[in-house]
Amino acid sequence: MSILDRIQEPNDIKKIDEKDLPELAQDIREFLIANVSETGGHLASNLGCVELTIALHRAMDFPADKLVWDVGHQSYVHKILTGRKDQMTTLRKFGGLSGFPKTSESDCDAFNTGHSSTAMSAALGMACARGIKGTQEKIAAVVGDGSFTGGMVYEALNNMAEVKTGCLVVLNDNEMSIDHNVGGMSSYLSKLRVGQPYNDLKNGIEKALMHIPVAGEKLAKGLKRSKDSLKQIFVPGMFFEEMGVTYIGPIDGHNIRMMEETFRRAFKLNKPILVHVKTIKGKGYKYAEKHPCYFHGISSFDVATGKVKNVEKGLSYTAVFARKLIELGTENNRIVAITAAMSKGTGVNKFAEEFPDRTFDVGIAEEHAVTFAAGLAAEGMIPVVAVYSSFLQRAYDQILHDVCMQNLHVIFAIDRSGLVGADGETHQGIFDTAFLSHIPNLVIMAPKNRYELTRAMEWAVAYDGPVAIKYARGQAYYGLKDYNEPVEYGKSEILREGSEIALVAVGNMVEETEKLYNRFLQEGRQVTFVNARFIKPLDKEMIDHLAETHKLIVTIEEGILHGGYGALVEEYLESKASDVKVLPIAIEDTFVRHGSVEELRKMLKIDAESIYRRIRDIME
Amino acid sequence: MSILDRIQEPNDIKKIDEKDLPELAQDIREFLIANVSETGGHLASNLGCVELTIALHRAMDFPADKLVWDVGHQSYVHKILTGRKDQMTTLRKFGGLSGFPKTSESDCDAFNTGHSSTAMSAALGMACARGIKGTQEKIAAVVGDGSFTGGMVYEALNNMAEVKTGCLVVLNDNEMSIDHNVGGMSSYLSKLRVGQPYNDLKNGIEKALMHIPVAGEKLAKGLKRSKDSLKQIFVPGMFFEEMGVTYIGPIDGHNIRMMEETFRRAFKLNKPILVHVKTIKGKGYKYAEKHPCYFHGISSFDVATGKVKNVEKGLSYTAVFARKLIELGTENNRIVAITAAMSKGTGVNKFAEEFPDRTFDVGIAEEHAVTFAAGLAAEGMIPVVAVYSSFLQRAYDQILHDVCMQNLHVIFAIDRSGLVGADGETHQGIFDTAFLSHIPNLVIMAPKNRYELTRAMEWAVAYDGPVAIKYARGQAYYGLKDYNEPVEYGKSEILREGSEIALVAVGNMVEETEKLYNRFLQEGRQVTFVNARFIKPLDKEMIDHLAETHKLIVTIEEGILHGGYGALVEEYLESKASDVKVLPIAIEDTFVRHGSVEELRKMLKIDAESIYRRIRDIME
Repeated sequence: MSILDRIQEPNDIKKIDEKDLPELAQDIREFLIANVSETGGHLASNLGCVELTIALHRAMDFPADKLVWDVGHQSYVHKILTGRKDQMTTLRKFGGLSGFPKTSESDCDAFNTGHSSTAMSAALGMACARGIKGTQEKIAAVVGDGSFTGGMVYEALNNMAEVKTGCLVVLNDNEMSIDHNVGGMSSYLSKLRVGQPYNDLKNGIEKALMHIPVAGEKLAKGLKRSKDSLKQIFVPGMFFEEMGVTYIGPIDGHNIRMMEETFRRAFKLNKPILVHVKTIKGKGYKYAEKHPCYFHGISSFDVATGKVKNVEKGLSYTAVFARKLIELGTENNRIVAITAAMSKGTGVNKFAEEFPDRTFDVGIAEEHAVTFAAGLAAEGMIPVVAVYSSFLQRAYDQILHDVCMQNLHVIFAIDRSGLVGADGETHQGIFDTAFLSHIPNLVIMAPKNRYELTRAMEWAVAYDGPVAIKYARGQAYYGLKDYNEPVEYGKSEILREGSEIALVAVGNMVEETEKLYNRFLQEGRQVTFVNARFIKPLDKEMIDHLAETHKLIVTIEEGILHGGYGALVEEYLESKASDVKVLPIAIEDTFVRHGSVEELRKMLKIDAESIYRRIRDIME
Repeated sequence: MSILDRIQEPNDIKKIDEKDLPELAQDIREFLIANVSETGGHLASNLGCVELTIALHRAMDFPADKLVWDVGHQSYVHKILTGRKDQMTTLRKFGGLSGFPKTSESDCDAFNTGHSSTAMSAALGMACARGIKGTQEKIAAVVGDGSFTGGMVYEALNNMAEVKTGCLVVLNDNEMSIDHNVGGMSSYLSKLRVGQPYNDLKNGIEKALMHIPVAGEKLAKGLKRSKDSLKQIFVPGMFFEEMGVTYIGPIDGHNIRMMEETFRRAFKLNKPILVHVKTIKGKGYKYAEKHPCYFHGISSFDVATGKVKNVEKGLSYTAVFARKLIELGTENNRIVAITAAMSKGTGVNKFAEEFPDRTFDVGIAEEHAVTFAAGLAAEGMIPVVAVYSSFLQRAYDQILHDVCMQNLHVIFAIDRSGLVGADGETHQGIFDTAFLSHIPNLVIMAPKNRYELTRAMEWAVAYDGPVAIKYARGQAYYGLKDYNEPVEYGKSEILREGSEIALVAVGNMVEETEKLYNRFLQEGRQVTFVNARFIKPLDKEMIDHLAETHKLIVTIEEGILHGGYGALVEEYLESKASDVKVLPIAIEDTFVRHGSVEELRKMLKIDAESIYRRIRDIME
């Protein structure tokens, strides 16, 4: 029986003898590697926080105490230690364990996370609730150094200093977000890691004192001998101390005993405390240590070689975007690329290689990214903000208030639009049409295949105003290559002209709709098949035409119903009091959990088969 | 001819002799007081930055150089100095000057602002554009200390330190946002103001050195003599320096010469620099100095007494909310109030007087406010987040991701929902239904009058899930008092049952619709009049009933059309293929500038008279 086998329930870890903890850590690492190599998932960050999680679990009691994981992709060890080890084989699968904390999964998960920089705010809320209730539970948040580039962290620190209640923040510093970390905070933290601030200050003092004629020389000499005492004054972390949060660290994030003691001490102090732990992302698996970004989120892989098992054939939309952006950037030196800590994920890294001076990685800071883009556009640049759909939610106000209200020429390249699959509900890109389509001045495009994505990009560069182009995760669609009607403002594209039923599909759902179209064709039914192309402005002429010549218009999109494309069509036709029926295929009023895109579409009844049946029911 | 009269065009200020500048400042103050006492507007902040604006105008050239005002309500002096003095009588009036910077108004306005903490991001974008273009213009942002409680500021600082290009940030520190400033940053800045960090450090060193037996004593004594030199090392502002931004200050924000010199020097250094200036909000007008919060934004007032001329009779919705919140808080100690630096504006200050331990002012930090509320709710509290509609836009992701995805019991009290009038397009609360109604789990209510607001609040406290209650700026409606159908989940309220036409009004538009109803009544036409009450979930039963028994359903709301209530009704009816016509009265796809609510409604054709004509056109 391995040490890990003795962990079946929350708090079992406290029964493990301290000397056996390193072996436990080793067991967990082996388990993680074996498991994630099969299921896929977030590996490197979990390997990095094995000891940290063990130490927290020894210093806290679950479910009484509350632990909030920022982003939450690093919560696998926590899941293993709270009785979910045997379910880890179902990780990120439809109906299985989530890859993020879920209160619905275990009462040891205190708060659901997924987006960056929220944990301190949530934990502080819990701490204030404790103060009102007069209870005594311990409250902690684990926050990566990457999340410290997000503004919410400072809003929480600012408030923490005001409230002064006990709340432990563990700064899990591995010098990475998904990519390497950027910005002033990152260089500050790396100074702390090597104790630089102390040395800087000491040298500064010495230098200044040399200018004081008599006493100065003596002082400077004396100072050299007083090194250790000074070190206690000039603790690193003055940044946090000055915000009003006690700083402890940096400490070794792979030394369980030291962390456990520090956490216990911190909880006793009953005030806001930040413990800075240094960890190594990917620790214990050589490929992950060497390529932590590659092993951040990974599909199933071969443990011996570190190679991904099923390499997708064909380019992803991301890759198509990345190539085209370089082409456009070569022709037009006003084009600038912006990413919020997702350089590789969005393909902006390729542009950065060619045009480093016109590429900006701003950190996990979508809000700043968008207003920064507005500033660039105000001075004649054409900024392309490449961002995942669900993360763009963070910048709704900036899109509306800073870009669209001034009608600035900013291009939003919205990657991972639509269902993303295994990452689940916090990452599904299903709200973008709904939160963007009511914003005045904004044009929204959804290309049907890889060729149209490049033409949409060309069009957006030539247009003078804000444009959002949305495209899905994963492999780009190569079909319908010969349908390449030139892009014209607000005009959709008729792919096949038929009768009775008109299928109007949006973006990646054109591919799914082609299956549907072919099925009707097999039945000898010539239906109309339209690529919406522009979500906003709506192609009213096309809709009028379809309404006059068809009995049923079926709109098909992979996004939330209300505020979506189908809703735009319905609103337009209702105002015209047309006789045509409209069937909007979209995601009903619900959040969508994890699973494969195929499984999720079936569940949501937006796959070709379900749509076919829904149409048949109406037409009968 | 006064000195001020000699300023007719941008850069005229440079022709004024330096010795005449104090007189100019005095002229401007008198002009501001006289003007704003007539037009209403933001007074205290503009009085506070007269010298600062003069100094910036002497150190910069307009329109070549770019100056971004954070929030922008303090840009009156800038308007006066850029040729808009004579238009100041039209300030905030329909068709007149905006109370905020507008690029459409003058090419000396570089960037439009209105919401907090955006200026540094925009200015940095401009600075990077300059780098790419290879031009030489100066770029500056003026940011209040209040805005430093917003997370975007740190995202920008973090990026600024990375980019390292020349960008001047003027931290205009008056120790206020609208209310008194809160949080760790605020106490940090106040330490800087009095040079505290230096003293703390010095004392710390002395104390530590005393522990070094021999050298220590000598050192400590020596140290006392080396005060001035040490002061140069331990400059205040290490917080910013450590972020990678050079800090200069604090300097007197009413000393034009010193500021002008500092700004000129800063521009020459060509790197990110923060100049900390101390100003007095309301300076030069005794009532405004004494009550800067009251004179932050004010309607027309008597200069001699400082009293507002037309005091509104009757309670505002804000006051009704504030009273009821105290009542609910007395009955239920789980109720907690949260404001984002809008304690007085939202009425949360009243609750704070009664329940200081259950009130949290988190600073201008709407994102943190919402996730903090989620944390409180996760631990059994019932947090009420009181916030202006247009500022809640900042927290869209947090509402969706942190509150609604976990179905937490957070109440959003959305004040200033609908048209707000004189503050104009950045402040119109016209997007809330559109950005909230597609979020799963969220219930949205819009009470028709003051009585219903209190009942909606009771209902929201009893309900177990996220609820948004929206209500308008200004005086609460007292009419329709006897219509008080008990609040029931998702049920609207029939006020008058008639035939042919059904008027379904949302929230504050019930009052406007009553006029419309009465007009029909005078014509001998009994139309149906419904109070929607719940925007989400939609009362489908009611809509079915209206569709079966009427020829026309008119939905009436003061918000953007797409994604709004009317759209929900249209989508629902289109999917039912009903024969009834729907006329959605809402704001078409446009931003709405400033003016009185009455003027704006007319312009937008959503006033009773316009709606009447639109209905007549359809029915004829």
